[in-house]
Amino acid sequence: MNADAQFHETFLRRAVELSRRSLDTGEGGPFGAVLVRNGEVLAEGWNRVIAANDPTAHAEVLAIREACRAQSAFRLDGSVLYASCEPCPMCLAAAYWAGVERIYYANTRDEAAAIGFCDAELYRELALPGEARRVPARRIALDGAFEPMELWAAIPGRVLY
Amino acid sequence: MNADAQFHETFLRRAVELSRRSLDTGEGGPFGAVLVRNGEVLAEGWNRVIAANDPTAHAEVLAIREACRAQSAFRLDGSVLYASCEPCPMCLAAAYWAGVERIYYANTRDEAAAIGFCDAELYRELALPGEARRVPARRIALDGAFEPMELWAAIPGRVLY
Repeated sequence: MNADAQFHETFLRRAVELSRRSLDTGEGGPFGAVLVRNGEVLAEGWNRVIAANDPTAHAEVLAIREACRAQSAFRLDGSVLYASCEPCPMCLAAAYWAGVERIYYANTRDEAAAIGFCDAELYRELALPGEARRVPARRIALDGAFEPMELWAAIPGRVLY
Repeated sequence: MNADAQFHETFLRRAVELSRRSLDTGEGGPFGAVLVRNGEVLAEGWNRVIAANDPTAHAEVLAIREACRAQSAFRLDGSVLYASCEPCPMCLAAAYWAGVERIYYANTRDEAAAIGFCDAELYRELALPGEARRVPARRIALDGAFEPMELWAAIPGRVLY
């Protein structure tokens, strides 16, 4: 195994180790994540959906939120996300919004499906038109709805994210 | 306009109203959301990415987290999400995880793109194989990585989410 692969495997093994937490604590599902930048761990996370009463408290989201808190930043450009299992669409999109550069994972969305999680289904749902989804999304056109967006876009020096 | 359409439009107008907050406060982008169940507002949210240093602090995610906190629940089954703009994949998947039943929105992902947000691109990216994405996701198979998931699935009476 070359040095690069060993480097990634070290952090990925840590993410898998974190996925064991829920077995003892019942805090959430068996998922762990580690965020790394320049070889330094920025934050670790493990699923806490049940303990936190927060359906967004997936390992990856918590690691991103914690790293941003620690860095006082809403972007983590150049960071690498290691996840014990392929991120669900929520976590994957969160990684994009955070400026994560690359993702490594061990288990797959199909392995998550095998133990009852809907990650694979979510990927299929998101590719459908809104009205065809299990959770239908319908547009209602409203007069004036776009105005706040236009006004925002016209703010000089607005902060982009 | 029938009563049903008027009902939805009332909450959607509120979501649009919330999308104006960032124009004054600079807390985040011009996006608002309202979560409703049985005609009752469970929570409201507006984008706070910048103020909170949290790339996941989208209007919809904050409304879901706040409603769950208020209900001491990690599911909001039967709730309806009203969003000033079509939810991004992170927010859409969060709605699935939360058990949201239906979504209504006013502005579209293309209108978000027109003012510089990457929602539409995110939908395209999520549909690609991991290695082909702008943020590449690569699987590294690790011995023993699936074991925590198997052990979790074997826990009698484990809490599903």
